[in-house]
Amino acid sequence: MTLGRLNHVGVATPSIERSVETYRTLLGATVIGVPFDLPAQGVRVCFVDAPNTQIELIEPLDDASPIAGFLRKNPAGGQHHLCFEVADIHAAIADLTGNGATVLGEPRIGAHGTPIVFVHPRDMGGLLVELMEESKDH
Amino acid sequence: MTLGRLNHVGVATPSIERSVETYRTLLGATVIGVPFDLPAQGVRVCFVDAPNTQIELIEPLDDASPIAGFLRKNPAGGQHHLCFEVADIHAAIADLTGNGATVLGEPRIGAHGTPIVFVHPRDMGGLLVELMEESKDH
Repeated sequence: MTLGRLNHVGVATPSIERSVETYRTLLGATVIGVPFDLPAQGVRVCFVDAPNTQIELIEPLDDASPIAGFLRKNPAGGQHHLCFEVADIHAAIADLTGNGATVLGEPRIGAHGTPIVFVHPRDMGGLLVELMEESKDH
Repeated sequence: MTLGRLNHVGVATPSIERSVETYRTLLGATVIGVPFDLPAQGVRVCFVDAPNTQIELIEPLDDASPIAGFLRKNPAGGQHHLCFEVADIHAAIADLTGNGATVLGEPRIGAHGTPIVFVHPRDMGGLLVELMEESKDH
């Protein structure tokens, strides 16, 4: 595997609406997507575009969401994960596990409609890293 | 201000050497800078390139470093800040303070040799955001 593009930075927030307003007012974000639910993951997400990558704002859909647990520890919100693109999710998983790393569960479809998987933070210096198969559309 | 490029993601680590090995072995990073000290900020840093942005690995130089405090709470390391580029640091500061946000101290020279400033996390949904004046070299 070769380190791919940083597709997005995942940022947990108690309120996508308030965060969008912050990014718009304070940082001058202008390209902001429409929020949508990912019920299988218990979250609502919204992408804010920077010129070279995206911020994925993530709000819990309910108290059982993994993001709800994150917000109990960080009530204001904060950086949650980094998502890098890979050419082939299964090849990436084989590379990682061959090098002794643990991936969390089976690949599933992520916010951009392609397969994703998370790497255990204990293998990545405390960072939660998401790997996302590149879209074949671009 | 218009939201600029994500110049880098700052990642705190107890050991740049071990983190470099992790990014190289597990994620396939190939373009990795030479670590260097920023004594005025109490840190040693090393840039790992992704195709569209950089990871800034940050290790404390001593126990008084702000990164040492971060590592006491997160011993394995973790995401520390996001750095966005701005055209003019003084104009950015004027925009932020005009909108009621707090910047932490005066601009100083950052790891890429241009002026930087940090925005208070309470204004940015718990995120520590660094603004970095673009290099005039590119």
